[in-house]
Amino acid sequence: MRNFVFHNPTKYVFGKDTVKKIGEEIASFDSKKVLLVAGGGSIKKNGVYDTVVDSLKKHGIQWVELWGVRPNPVLSKVREGIEIAKKENVDGVLAVGGGSVIDTAKTIAHGLFIDNVWDMFVDSSKVPDSALPIYVVLTISATGSEMNGGAVITNEETGQKWAFSSPLSYPKVSIVDPTVQFSLPKKQTANGGSDALSHILEAYITGKSTDTTVYYDEGLMRSIIDNIDTLMVDPRNYEARASFAWAATLALNGISSKGLAGDWLSHAIEHAISAIYPDVAHGSGLAVVHPAVLMYRRKHNPEILKRWAQQVWGENTIEGGIERLRAKYKEWGLPISLKELGVKPSDWQSIIDKTVELGWGDLWEPITPQVVEEILRYADI
Amino acid sequence: MRNFVFHNPTKYVFGKDTVKKIGEEIASFDSKKVLLVAGGGSIKKNGVYDTVVDSLKKHGIQWVELWGVRPNPVLSKVREGIEIAKKENVDGVLAVGGGSVIDTAKTIAHGLFIDNVWDMFVDSSKVPDSALPIYVVLTISATGSEMNGGAVITNEETGQKWAFSSPLSYPKVSIVDPTVQFSLPKKQTANGGSDALSHILEAYITGKSTDTTVYYDEGLMRSIIDNIDTLMVDPRNYEARASFAWAATLALNGISSKGLAGDWLSHAIEHAISAIYPDVAHGSGLAVVHPAVLMYRRKHNPEILKRWAQQVWGENTIEGGIERLRAKYKEWGLPISLKELGVKPSDWQSIIDKTVELGWGDLWEPITPQVVEEILRYADI
Repeated sequence: MRNFVFHNPTKYVFGKDTVKKIGEEIASFDSKKVLLVAGGGSIKKNGVYDTVVDSLKKHGIQWVELWGVRPNPVLSKVREGIEIAKKENVDGVLAVGGGSVIDTAKTIAHGLFIDNVWDMFVDSSKVPDSALPIYVVLTISATGSEMNGGAVITNEETGQKWAFSSPLSYPKVSIVDPTVQFSLPKKQTANGGSDALSHILEAYITGKSTDTTVYYDEGLMRSIIDNIDTLMVDPRNYEARASFAWAATLALNGISSKGLAGDWLSHAIEHAISAIYPDVAHGSGLAVVHPAVLMYRRKHNPEILKRWAQQVWGENTIEGGIERLRAKYKEWGLPISLKELGVKPSDWQSIIDKTVELGWGDLWEPITPQVVEEILRYADI
Repeated sequence: MRNFVFHNPTKYVFGKDTVKKIGEEIASFDSKKVLLVAGGGSIKKNGVYDTVVDSLKKHGIQWVELWGVRPNPVLSKVREGIEIAKKENVDGVLAVGGGSVIDTAKTIAHGLFIDNVWDMFVDSSKVPDSALPIYVVLTISATGSEMNGGAVITNEETGQKWAFSSPLSYPKVSIVDPTVQFSLPKKQTANGGSDALSHILEAYITGKSTDTTVYYDEGLMRSIIDNIDTLMVDPRNYEARASFAWAATLALNGISSKGLAGDWLSHAIEHAISAIYPDVAHGSGLAVVHPAVLMYRRKHNPEILKRWAQQVWGENTIEGGIERLRAKYKEWGLPISLKELGVKPSDWQSIIDKTVELGWGDLWEPITPQVVEEILRYADI
């Protein structure tokens, strides 16, 4: 086990009928006027927006709005938000949405304290020491951003999908009401399942068989698989929605990785792909890439991959476990090959270059073009 | 799944060679003079005391000392600490020890802000809104007090072993270096294992088979069993010490219980026993009581107990699982019957009365004398 620090100060408020608490929570942190960040408008259809603004009004909190954050959120939208936040003199940022909305909000919250916000993605020493407080009402469980200090943004000008992290990026409060996810399309639920499983796997495959974290990560993965299975046939099942929502948060709030090193090569390759193909959902990209990375990682940690195949899938071989993972993704309606994802062979080189440039995943060896190409071949089925 | 709030602000610093960071951490929270609370002196033998005071000196932090906290910590020692803290005008409390030392420190930290500190144990509305900041260097993994807001103290005058909790009882920082536990007697390691398993079981047996928390609790329990097994033959095994230490923290920092109701009847009966027999270690008391409570709870949640028997022990019946738990405790050198614990039949009535008075464990039915007696009979083997 590696040394680690676990310090997650987010207040996580979970359960039925909790969205209406957002005004009271924001007031308790003394914010008076927030920038409400949102996506394409689904929160107006499912009632979440009305509940949020009623709660803000009730607690005397003013707000201005930034709409139109899309999956694979972009830097131009962040810049738009920073301008509004400055002009309107807000003292907090409220994300009402999924990971893309939250990551946009986190970046805006820091962007007021740095001249060029992209600089902090390029050079982590430039992350400012100040940020507006961040509040979250979660509407899609997937990225775990509701309880961690990271954010991923795509710079459309440079074609880079990069990340930053900061202790000030932990939301002060995140409200997670699983019932607001009842109306999600099946594909989004499945993408969330793939994303959460990937977050756990990135850490898990760097573990040892004695690690406590390895033991409970297996429980987390099994819960995600079983509960997403339920949601594929019964999307309004509260127990399954709730269990998946909590598992998706635990998948990336520090719990699933403490004491382990972390790989992140699957995420690097997926970021390269969706930087080129912005319509590729993160979870779908990971469904294609992660099984291929596991095939490649057999030589690096066979002990833990064999354990994973046995404990999570009841299979005796690593290959058997990976096949089961792919079959599960297919069953959930996710793509499992680069072709199904729409990736053209002519873009392989660009994917390879971007992955190598990002530089994640070098725990066992440097990430060379050859490494990435070998993994892409495993995904070319 | 039940609604819940997870908000654990403790900064948890884990790993080899971390004790020396305590001065820097305390300084970062602006404490200038702390009350150092400790037990019987083992920290002077294993070098922890020297490392702590060197670090305090290096960072210009003054301290005064309170020694002699014993297992099943007592109110008189708390009162002694409050007097010193007042007289010496300290602005923080530093626990260097295990759960008893931490709980004494937590109570002292609140005791400066209430006339009679026992009042807050009797009436939770009297817990003060202020407390000195609490810092921890952990030397025995067992109670989880290093990362939660609770404390248990025995009032020697009334014979009550009772608890209080407060958001201000979460330590600001807890440092957990597994290597300082290399020299623990086997019995204490085994007691820690029993205590941690009990914390998980109190929550787990109130769960449903769909609950994410149930899934990863099984992983936590299996890790504890496997790693304590290792420590029984190889007490200086770092990986096992580290994995057990992290698991014992997770067993009672909120993670193992979120979304579940919690039973706590085993703890109620054990508190009654060790209030009468102060030499009974908490973990040993639980090793006797918890299997008996599980026998009794078969009628209340057979689904989850059957799952537990299968997932944790590979047994097909609840009784088979409970037998395996008892056999494991016996293998670790723990008592498994009231007789082995030294409990006299003439004290049963007093144990029953104290358990009923404490009032924990009434999720499924009121706790009557008949209920407690039936459980004691299951422990009378």
